[in-house]
Amino acid sequence: MREFKQLTPYREALEMMLNDIKEIEEIEELPLDDALGRVLAEDVISLIDLPPFDRSAVDGYAVRAEDTFQAREYSPVELEVIDEITAGMESKKEVSNGKAVKLMTGNKMPKGANAVIEQEKVKREGNKIYVLRPVAPGQNVAFKGEDVKKGEVVLKKGQILRPQDLGLLKGIGIKRVTVKRRPKVGIIVTGDELIEEPDEEALNEGKILESNSAMLKALIRQYFGESIFYGVIPDDEELIGATLERAKCECDLVLITGGSAFGEKDYAHKFVNLLFHGTTIKPGRPIGYGERIFVMSGYPAAVFAQFHLYVKYALAKLSGANYKPTKVKARLKEKVPSSLGRHEFVKVYYENGEAVPIKKKGSGIMSALVESNAYLEIPEDSEGYKEGEEVWVVLY
Amino acid sequence: MREFKQLTPYREALEMMLNDIKEIEEIEELPLDDALGRVLAEDVISLIDLPPFDRSAVDGYAVRAEDTFQAREYSPVELEVIDEITAGMESKKEVSNGKAVKLMTGNKMPKGANAVIEQEKVKREGNKIYVLRPVAPGQNVAFKGEDVKKGEVVLKKGQILRPQDLGLLKGIGIKRVTVKRRPKVGIIVTGDELIEEPDEEALNEGKILESNSAMLKALIRQYFGESIFYGVIPDDEELIGATLERAKCECDLVLITGGSAFGEKDYAHKFVNLLFHGTTIKPGRPIGYGERIFVMSGYPAAVFAQFHLYVKYALAKLSGANYKPTKVKARLKEKVPSSLGRHEFVKVYYENGEAVPIKKKGSGIMSALVESNAYLEIPEDSEGYKEGEEVWVVLY
Repeated sequence: MREFKQLTPYREALEMMLNDIKEIEEIEELPLDDALGRVLAEDVISLIDLPPFDRSAVDGYAVRAEDTFQAREYSPVELEVIDEITAGMESKKEVSNGKAVKLMTGNKMPKGANAVIEQEKVKREGNKIYVLRPVAPGQNVAFKGEDVKKGEVVLKKGQILRPQDLGLLKGIGIKRVTVKRRPKVGIIVTGDELIEEPDEEALNEGKILESNSAMLKALIRQYFGESIFYGVIPDDEELIGATLERAKCECDLVLITGGSAFGEKDYAHKFVNLLFHGTTIKPGRPIGYGERIFVMSGYPAAVFAQFHLYVKYALAKLSGANYKPTKVKARLKEKVPSSLGRHEFVKVYYENGEAVPIKKKGSGIMSALVESNAYLEIPEDSEGYKEGEEVWVVLY
Repeated sequence: MREFKQLTPYREALEMMLNDIKEIEEIEELPLDDALGRVLAEDVISLIDLPPFDRSAVDGYAVRAEDTFQAREYSPVELEVIDEITAGMESKKEVSNGKAVKLMTGNKMPKGANAVIEQEKVKREGNKIYVLRPVAPGQNVAFKGEDVKKGEVVLKKGQILRPQDLGLLKGIGIKRVTVKRRPKVGIIVTGDELIEEPDEEALNEGKILESNSAMLKALIRQYFGESIFYGVIPDDEELIGATLERAKCECDLVLITGGSAFGEKDYAHKFVNLLFHGTTIKPGRPIGYGERIFVMSGYPAAVFAQFHLYVKYALAKLSGANYKPTKVKARLKEKVPSSLGRHEFVKVYYENGEAVPIKKKGSGIMSALVESNAYLEIPEDSEGYKEGEEVWVVLY
């Protein structure tokens, strides 16, 4: 096996890759109900004020605040109730000196009124109320546009749509949103040793059940994309070349696993004009990238690290998503040594501010992935962290 | 409006509700590709060892470690290469004294060999290799079952399936998983003031665009469920009663928004035998629960808080999900005062260990929801937190 002459530092390779990847231009228009998790393709500007009018923030009496300034518990101010409305109604009466309108939370403020007194804070007798304390102008009023102003950008291009975003959009009268098309990501799994179906005899002879496709399909879905699986391809130079060519035409991004090193049967890099091949990450060092193709390891734990360190950022760039990994402070329960010169991807289990490193070694170990729920990155210039040290972990 | 006689403390109400809710019994069998985010209905036990055999963890030469103990750079040990195999093949040769078999990462260990030397660490000449350093027994060997043992529980009932879980399942030969049926959650939105379609005239008269349905549909999807929307129902006692009845029959859980207080038109609680009505949470105090029905507020920000403080835990219980909210340590950028006796739900923007409280007040304020990405809970016995204090926030 030829060794990598030089490993490209993690961040340098990341930047090269991200500079090469272009945001997808195609957009789709979707009803709100289908837009959860999708990426906004343009700024959304509100065409209305929210609230669309000054409205009451409580159930109570709309009054002129000035009328209440003299109100004291021992000398209440008497006001006349000239109208009573319920939800969704509008009072046509004007509140002048000494008058009040009974209304409910959300009702439009009647003309003349500039404050609302909560109903439990007055005494009611017939069509009179007795105000015991003054209210300030504006008190208990939600003003027109105080939530959202007409013409205001409420959500920016690149927003990954969440439940509250969809609620706001519905609340300002938007029924359909323009989102980016999902990136199409091809998955090619290579390796003579791999089988897709459990087969005891084959397993005994040294075959291995392929597992990268299931993991990658789900990761791609989690990170804004949709996957096309090209199957498990044997280590056949021609077949791999043809499959790569097809996938490149049909997809925005291609992930080919296995054959990323320089073994006799590592063909993938022969077909791709690689921008880099071999970076300082550990595990996953043999990763290569060029022409919208990631040449990845065969081992699931290495593939997983390569996905989180490189591929997810490629997917965010492609889909125009304003994505940042969630960084969380955690106290390390055990020391984590690291080799100088390697950008280590350390699987941890995070809970309530503590991170337990998952000690199982080896890029073939899948149970370690399952036990972890976050990762810690240790850059090239660090020899690792001590027990009890505070570190940043990224939640999966 | 009648006031709440007594507010049930947040946690007490939560426990009452969770005690009342029973896990769904129905299960579904799904192919792995459809199982992301679904909840395992039973423990998964591996039927195979992983690796299924002792295998090489590197590309190199399988040897008897004892043969290399004397190897030194100045006096290398010579071994004869008796076989060479590539990926997925098995060597039928036995490695005896002084012999070696060339193999690749993942290959089954040949009989007699107990260690592998990386190929870049030997000198090769014809069918001889020269070993420069000793290797220990077991070195570079991945032992049968070291990742997963036959008969071992690899994933537990209640696991919310993630990409790495699906990878592991595929790797141990499992093609279909048994998951819980998704809880069906009915949404009923009530209020005479609400309209579904933007209509300038109606808006000017005091109507409001309904937004809870869009937000709740997405929240339910995010938290293990699927929603059925029963539309916007006017404040009509009979209509609300009939819709509730229907939704109760068709769904595992029903959320009815609007009409949770004691206003003249707050009908919802009349139809439900409530276990509690009114809790110490803020916003969202008028929440009620009984008979698998949540009687919720009309205001989106209150509904959002009620969902995160109560409904999502109900959904986790229904679907049998082993769900814990992700708690993250954050330094408060501004003080957050809180009233004694209230369990406050404070929206914050979390980034890199810092939390900025979103100051906009009022349960009608939707833009505050959009600006936030996490929340801080302040229990009843706390008067809030100071600027710079470290607090726990929960990420949405």
